[in-house]
Amino acid sequence: MVEVAEGELLLDAALEAGVFIPASCGGSGACGQCKVKIISGSAEALKIEKVHAAARAAGYVLACQSRLIGDVTVEIPQAKVGRKVIPRDEAERMRLTARPMESPLIPETNPMTIRVFVQAPPPSSHDNVSDDERIIRTLKVDHNIYPVTADLNVLRQVPLEVRNKEWKFTACLNVDDCLGSDQPRYRLSRVCSGHLGFPPTALAVDIGTTSLWGELVNLETGEVTARASRYNPQIAMGDDVISRIVYALKKDGSEKLQQHVVKGLNEIIEETTQRSGLPLESVNYLVASGNTVMTHLFLGLYPKFLRESPYVPAAQNVDPVPSSDLGLNLPPHSYVRVFPGVASYVGGDIVSGVLANGMWNADEMTLFIDIGTNGEIVAGNKDLLMTASCSAGPAFEGGGLEYGMRAAPGAIEGILMDPDTLEPMIRTIDSKPAVGICGSGIINIISQMLKIGIVNQNGKYAQDLETKRIRQGNSGQEYVICWARESGLNEDIVLTEVDLDNILRAKAAMFSGYTCLLEKIGLSVDALDRVIIAGAFGSFINLDHAVTIGLLPDIPREKFSFIGNSSLKGARLAAIDRKLFERSREIARAMTNVELSEDPAYMDNFMAALFLPHTRGELFPSVHVGFYG
Amino acid sequence: MVEVAEGELLLDAALEAGVFIPASCGGSGACGQCKVKIISGSAEALKIEKVHAAARAAGYVLACQSRLIGDVTVEIPQAKVGRKVIPRDEAERMRLTARPMESPLIPETNPMTIRVFVQAPPPSSHDNVSDDERIIRTLKVDHNIYPVTADLNVLRQVPLEVRNKEWKFTACLNVDDCLGSDQPRYRLSRVCSGHLGFPPTALAVDIGTTSLWGELVNLETGEVTARASRYNPQIAMGDDVISRIVYALKKDGSEKLQQHVVKGLNEIIEETTQRSGLPLESVNYLVASGNTVMTHLFLGLYPKFLRESPYVPAAQNVDPVPSSDLGLNLPPHSYVRVFPGVASYVGGDIVSGVLANGMWNADEMTLFIDIGTNGEIVAGNKDLLMTASCSAGPAFEGGGLEYGMRAAPGAIEGILMDPDTLEPMIRTIDSKPAVGICGSGIINIISQMLKIGIVNQNGKYAQDLETKRIRQGNSGQEYVICWARESGLNEDIVLTEVDLDNILRAKAAMFSGYTCLLEKIGLSVDALDRVIIAGAFGSFINLDHAVTIGLLPDIPREKFSFIGNSSLKGARLAAIDRKLFERSREIARAMTNVELSEDPAYMDNFMAALFLPHTRGELFPSVHVGFYG
Repeated sequence: MVEVAEGELLLDAALEAGVFIPASCGGSGACGQCKVKIISGSAEALKIEKVHAAARAAGYVLACQSRLIGDVTVEIPQAKVGRKVIPRDEAERMRLTARPMESPLIPETNPMTIRVFVQAPPPSSHDNVSDDERIIRTLKVDHNIYPVTADLNVLRQVPLEVRNKEWKFTACLNVDDCLGSDQPRYRLSRVCSGHLGFPPTALAVDIGTTSLWGELVNLETGEVTARASRYNPQIAMGDDVISRIVYALKKDGSEKLQQHVVKGLNEIIEETTQRSGLPLESVNYLVASGNTVMTHLFLGLYPKFLRESPYVPAAQNVDPVPSSDLGLNLPPHSYVRVFPGVASYVGGDIVSGVLANGMWNADEMTLFIDIGTNGEIVAGNKDLLMTASCSAGPAFEGGGLEYGMRAAPGAIEGILMDPDTLEPMIRTIDSKPAVGICGSGIINIISQMLKIGIVNQNGKYAQDLETKRIRQGNSGQEYVICWARESGLNEDIVLTEVDLDNILRAKAAMFSGYTCLLEKIGLSVDALDRVIIAGAFGSFINLDHAVTIGLLPDIPREKFSFIGNSSLKGARLAAIDRKLFERSREIARAMTNVELSEDPAYMDNFMAALFLPHTRGELFPSVHVGFYG
Repeated sequence: MVEVAEGELLLDAALEAGVFIPASCGGSGACGQCKVKIISGSAEALKIEKVHAAARAAGYVLACQSRLIGDVTVEIPQAKVGRKVIPRDEAERMRLTARPMESPLIPETNPMTIRVFVQAPPPSSHDNVSDDERIIRTLKVDHNIYPVTADLNVLRQVPLEVRNKEWKFTACLNVDDCLGSDQPRYRLSRVCSGHLGFPPTALAVDIGTTSLWGELVNLETGEVTARASRYNPQIAMGDDVISRIVYALKKDGSEKLQQHVVKGLNEIIEETTQRSGLPLESVNYLVASGNTVMTHLFLGLYPKFLRESPYVPAAQNVDPVPSSDLGLNLPPHSYVRVFPGVASYVGGDIVSGVLANGMWNADEMTLFIDIGTNGEIVAGNKDLLMTASCSAGPAFEGGGLEYGMRAAPGAIEGILMDPDTLEPMIRTIDSKPAVGICGSGIINIISQMLKIGIVNQNGKYAQDLETKRIRQGNSGQEYVICWARESGLNEDIVLTEVDLDNILRAKAAMFSGYTCLLEKIGLSVDALDRVIIAGAFGSFINLDHAVTIGLLPDIPREKFSFIGNSSLKGARLAAIDRKLFERSREIARAMTNVELSEDPAYMDNFMAALFLPHTRGELFPSVHVGFYG
C-alpha cells in the first residue's frame, strides 16, 4: 500500500515504495521487462508495443508506461519477485527526499537597467540645446530621473534614433545605487526610436567548474523565460579548479580558458533567447556567479596566487564589464556583473547561494552545504556566517567517474536493487535510454549496494556474490548497472572500485569539512536548526541514501531541505533586484573564511570518514548496513 | 630715433620704426639687400658672407643679421631711400601691437589623474583579502583616498605588478569630483611596481578646423614640456566646417574624417613626447577643445543636424572616452576629455577661450574675438555672457588664399611697403626663406597697401602704378610679395584680388558679428572696457593695421590685448586643474548664444562692412587711407 500522486507512473510508484520490478532501459519502454498485471483499478497505458495482445487482454501493462488513475492494485509476476523484501519502515524512510526549498526572498523588480518611454519636445530655434541635454532634461523633468550621464557609443546613435519617431523614444538607463547615497546615478546605455516591442531581459548564469547553467529572466515580470545548461567547455583543460589554474599559467592558457567558458555561455545565450522567442537585443546584462577560480578565468584575472598560500584572489569586487570586452555574444549596450567572493576557495557562487537561501537574514542556526565540484560549507545565521571549502572533487557532479555525468536526459537517477537477484531497477531522467549516472543516482546506488551487501564498508565490492553483474574490469572490480543492449551508449554502464573510492573521498571531505567548521563555532550537528543542501543534483536528494553513505549528518530528516542550484537562484534574484546584488557585497564581507587545509583536525576527520558510513558508527545511529543479507 | 630692446635685430628695429630697408628674403641673410652702414655704436654681425670685405671695412652690415649692442646710428644707402616718408606719429602708431595677455588664472595642480606611491602590507594567512581589497584598504587608511573602484583591465595587471617590488607600487587614480558632492570618487586606472621614473603628463590640444595645436604638460610642475602643431589633415576633405559636414554624411565619410584628425593628433603626440624626452606611458589623458563640428568629427558624433536649422548638436557633455576607442596612439590607461560647447557654431574652443581669458569672472565689460576659421565672439562679464559666431572663413588663418599659410617658419609676418618704390620689406617667422603669408602678415600687408594706395577701398588693386610687382594673374590682378628667386618655394608669392576679396568678406563678417552682438546687449564699442583678441596669429596682432582694414573697432589702443590661441590655453589650464574643467561646464551653461544667421541686422552690417575700412568712415576716425600719395 503506497500513496502516490495521481498520474504518476507505476514504475516510479514502485521505486518509491521499494517494490522491485525489473527494468533496465531507464523507463523508456524499450526493454519490456517491467510488465505487471493490473488486479483492480485502472492505468492509462502510454506505449503498448512491448506487450502482446494476449497479455494485454489479461491485464498486463508496462509499469514504466502506465499512469495511475485512482487506486490500483497490481501483481508482479511471481518468477521475478525477490525472496528478500525490504522492511516496511526502511522502505518508508527510503522515500524521504530532502524537502524542496525555494528562496524565501521575494525580489522586487529593481533591474540594473531600467527602460523609460520618453516624449521630448522637438528642438526649435528658441530651444536648440544639444540632443544629450534635451534627453537629460526630459528625463529629469518628466521622469524624475537624474543625474544622468551618457556613453559616447549611445550619443553616436542618438540624433537619428530620437528623430526617427519625432522625439518619441525608449531610453535604457543603467542604475548605480552608489552605496552611501540616497540618490542613484544613471547612465544612458541605449536610445531607440519609439517603443521597443519586447520586454527587457537579463541572463543569470552559474559558472560551475563542471557545468554552466543559465536562465533568461523577463525583467518586467521577473519570470524565467528559458533555461539552458552545458558542460563547461574548460573541462578539456582539466577536471578541477587546480588543474585549470595550472593550465591558465601556460602560454596563452588564460586566454584559451577564457574563450572556452565564453563559448559555452554564448551557446546558452543563443539557446535561451531562441527558446524564449526574444531577440538578443532584449538582453541588458548578465549576472554571473561562480567559484573564485571560475570567476577569475571568466574575467581573465591572473589566477596564480589563488592556489599558493596564503591563497589570495586578484579581485573580488569588479565593476560592470562591457559584454564585448569578454567576447560574449550579447548586444553592445549590455554588460556583465559578477558576484563577489569571500576567498580563493569560497566564491561568488556560495555568496549567491547564501543570498538565495536567506540564512544571512534568519534566526535559525543553519548549515548550508553546496555539493558542487568543490564542496563548500557555510554555517551560521544573521549574526554570524562562517565558511570553508573542502576539496571534494567533482564526483557528486558525475565528474571523474567512469560513467558519471551531470543531471541531464538519460542520466540514471532513480535506482532500486533487488536484494535477492542483485539486479537493479533503473529510472533515467526524461526516460531516455541510460547514458550515464548522475550525482544523486550514484548516492542512491552506493547506499543500496551497501545495504544489501554488494559493497562493504571499505567501499570495495563483496567477493563470491552470485551475479554476472560484478566482474573484473580494467580498473579492479566493477558492477554493470546497465547492459550495453539496453543502454543508450551501446556499451555496458559500470561503477568501478575506483569510482567507489572517489565517492568515498568526496563524501569524507564534505563530512570532515562541516564537522570542523561547526567545531570552530562550538556546535555539534545536533544543535543545527536546519541543513540546506545545494547542488546540481537531478532532483531532490534522497536523504536516507545520503545519510547511509555518510555524506549528510544523521539528524532528524525534517531538518533537511534541498535548494538545488542555489548559485543560479541567487544570480536570478540579483538580476531581478539590483538591491539584492548590492546585498551580496555585504554578505561577502560578513562571511568569515576558515582555511581547512591548514587545520590538522580536518585531516583527522577526513581519514576517519573514509568508511561507510564512518569509522565511528555511533555518529550514524539510524544506518544499518547489510541487513537484508 | 627708435627705442628697441638690446639684442634686437636691426631689420626688426627698422620694421617697427617704419623705416624702409629693402629685404626680400625674409631675414634669412640670403638676399643681401638689407645692407646698412653703421655710423656710430656697434652691432654684432651674425652672418657676413653677403658683405664684401671692403664694404665690411667701411662699416656695412646686413640689417637682418646684426644684433644691436647699445645705441646705434645707421645710414641707409641713399639710392634706396624712398622719396616719401611715413609721418612720425603714423610710424609710432604702427608699432603698437595688442598687449600680450596671459590667462589671469593661476591653476592649482589638481590633475584629473593623481599618482600615489603605496606601500601595502603583504598578504599573510591571517590577512588574505584579495588584491583589490588590499589596495583599496591601503589607499583609504594611508592616503585618505576613497571610495575607489577599479577597472577590470587594471585588476588583470595587479597581482604581478604589486608583487614585483613586494607590495611597493605606484597607483594612478582618475578623479571624478561628482558635482554636488564634497567627496570625489576615484577610479584606479593603473598599478605599476615601485616608483615610476618619470612625471605624469597630459596633452592639451586645440582641434582647429585648419590647424591642430598641442602642448604636453608636466602634471607635477604644470609646465609645458613640448609644443607641436600641424595642419588638420581633414583639410583634404574641405576647408571649412560646412564642407566637412557634407563630407561626413557621405559613405564612410565620418570614419575617414575621424581617422584623419586622429592621424594629426597622433603625430603631435609623437612629436611632443619625443621632444620632451618623456615616454608615451607618461601621458594620462588628453584634454581637447575645438569648435562643435571639430568635436563631433573627432568623437564620431553624427554632425548632420549641426548645419540644419535649428542647428542642434548631438552632444555637448561627453564622459571620459578611453583613448583607444578613438584610435589615439596613447597608453591603454589614458582617456580623453572634450570641452563642452554652447551651440552648433559656438564650441568648446570658445568656452575654453573664455575660461582662459577670465572674462567669466571679471567686472570689466569685455569683447572677446576669436579669429579662427570660424570667427566667434563673446561679449559680457561675470554677470552676463552673450556669444555668436559669424562665418568668417579661414582667411585670417591663411586658408583659402593663394599663398596663405598658418603661422609657421617661413610665413611672411612682418612687412613694410616703400611708399615710393612700392617695394616690400619682409620678415618671416624664424627668418626662413618665405613660403607663404600668415594671418597677421596679410592684415599688415593689406593695411599698408591701402595706406599707400596700392589697394583701393573696394579691395581692388590700383591701376597704372609703376611697379612690375602688380600684374595680371590667373585670377585677376595680383601683387608679387616675394619673387621666386628669393622665396623658399622657387615660385613667386603673390596676393591676388580674389585673396583680397576673401579678406574683405572675412573682416566684414567679424565686424558685423561683434557689432550685432553688442547691439543685443545695448552697448556700443565705446562702452567696452577691453577687447581681447584670440587667434593663431604668428605673434601679437598689429592693432593699427587691423583697425585700418576695419577688422577691429577704432577705440583706444590700450583697451586691446592679444591672448593668442586661447582655446589651447584653456585646454592646458583644464589639464592642470580639473576643477577648471568642471568650471568650463558652468561657463558653457552660462553662455547665451545668438543665432546671427537669422538676424536681418547682421546681413545689413555685413554688406556695409565690405569696404576698407567701412562704408561709414566715421566709425574709423583714426584711419586715413592713401595719405602718402
